[in-house]
Amino acid sequence: MKLTQIRNATQLLTFGGKRFLIDPMLAEKGARPGFEGSVRSHIRNPMVALPVDIATLLDVDAIIVTHTHSDHWDDAAVAHVPKAMRIYVQNEPDAQLLHSQGFSNLHILSDSTRFDEVELIKTDCQHGSDAAYAHPQLAARLGESCGVIFRHPAEETLWLAGDSVWTPSIARTLRQFSPGVVILNTGWAHVLEFGPIIFGKEDILRTHQIVPEARIVATHMEALNHCLTTRKELLDYAQDNLIASRVSAPADGESLIF
Amino acid sequence: MKLTQIRNATQLLTFGGKRFLIDPMLAEKGARPGFEGSVRSHIRNPMVALPVDIATLLDVDAIIVTHTHSDHWDDAAVAHVPKAMRIYVQNEPDAQLLHSQGFSNLHILSDSTRFDEVELIKTDCQHGSDAAYAHPQLAARLGESCGVIFRHPAEETLWLAGDSVWTPSIARTLRQFSPGVVILNTGWAHVLEFGPIIFGKEDILRTHQIVPEARIVATHMEALNHCLTTRKELLDYAQDNLIASRVSAPADGESLIF
Repeated sequence: MKLTQIRNATQLLTFGGKRFLIDPMLAEKGARPGFEGSVRSHIRNPMVALPVDIATLLDVDAIIVTHTHSDHWDDAAVAHVPKAMRIYVQNEPDAQLLHSQGFSNLHILSDSTRFDEVELIKTDCQHGSDAAYAHPQLAARLGESCGVIFRHPAEETLWLAGDSVWTPSIARTLRQFSPGVVILNTGWAHVLEFGPIIFGKEDILRTHQIVPEARIVATHMEALNHCLTTRKELLDYAQDNLIASRVSAPADGESLIF
Repeated sequence: MKLTQIRNATQLLTFGGKRFLIDPMLAEKGARPGFEGSVRSHIRNPMVALPVDIATLLDVDAIIVTHTHSDHWDDAAVAHVPKAMRIYVQNEPDAQLLHSQGFSNLHILSDSTRFDEVELIKTDCQHGSDAAYAHPQLAARLGESCGVIFRHPAEETLWLAGDSVWTPSIARTLRQFSPGVVILNTGWAHVLEFGPIIFGKEDILRTHQIVPEARIVATHMEALNHCLTTRKELLDYAQDNLIASRVSAPADGESLIF
């Protein structure tokens, strides 16, 4: 497989001969205000530009949208993605949203989705703490999100863990599928009063404890106002904990081959 | 109350008219190797010198030893503390250890200890993750630890939370005693493979969520090889989360009055 970090959670993936675009946020640098009610909301998003042109990103066989927050599926994506593009979404509400935006080739991920030889298995996320989900307005705003297991006879199992905090379900998924490669969204995005809503650097250690042989690719950093973990800080943490050989935090535009 | 940060978890406290020395680590800078099996163990401990002379530290009415790890009660403390000093310890084994070291005025903390007008209530700690305590050798090494609630009619309730990671018990203690001042050991000390064994910066936010009016004093930082949180990083985090007015991270030698 070949994985190219684009920006934030947006990545290009070639897996089992198929080319995927993951979580396209295609806006220009600074196009939107910071997320209201999150830390450092005076900073505009995205904080950095795309490292490649949009046409390159759209030269794929399918798009995966783990959820429809604007840092994973934005107005620019709606404008630029061809309406007939094959798009995988997490559930019926997201399919209805994209349908209303004119997209026609929508597929809802399940625990047994297939795209020819590539198997796509939806996995659970929790996009904030229990306390955050106990707050009705915040719970509605955080909403549902998913991860995806990718399998193919010629590839190691890949897990795109998605926008989640660490939960027992995350640990169960790691034990169940024993992925060889794990993409972790480690930006440690914070909402005010309620803390982290995605993984942070400690979660690379938790992941390593369960799947010590796995390569961990850290992403969803240094592109949005509310993400507090930097790549350098994460890699320093990996080094301090003697797991640096298992952890990557690719720069925007950088590719990894597994 | 007056609280003076000395170094690591060592603090001077005047509370209800009594002067306490908390968790004396009195060694000279660099006297010991880094903790084996912890992160950055090539760094010698303590990383910094005491900011005041030892005689000043021993001009107290009592010493509190939350547990007997060498960063809370060390050979230099054994050598310098007068054998008749009133010392509060967490349990019978620690009392026996200090007795064997020649100390004679030992008091085991309970849920109703009194030192004249000052009430001292022992609280629970968990000095590492569940996974760490599931590992017999590491569990033995981490051992037991405690926190202490200080109460006096003329003072706000103070909680010295102790060497612990965040657990439901920590949240319960906060709810039960609703302290006005909380001392949190936020150095995020890490043992290799098992991660944090004391609080980190996220725990100031968790504490604030439960006791929003409390002043939080962050300590146990920048003195030992395996503590990864710096004061600056912690204070930046407090500022990002808009709780800076509630959080202090005093320099060694700095005093706070509440």
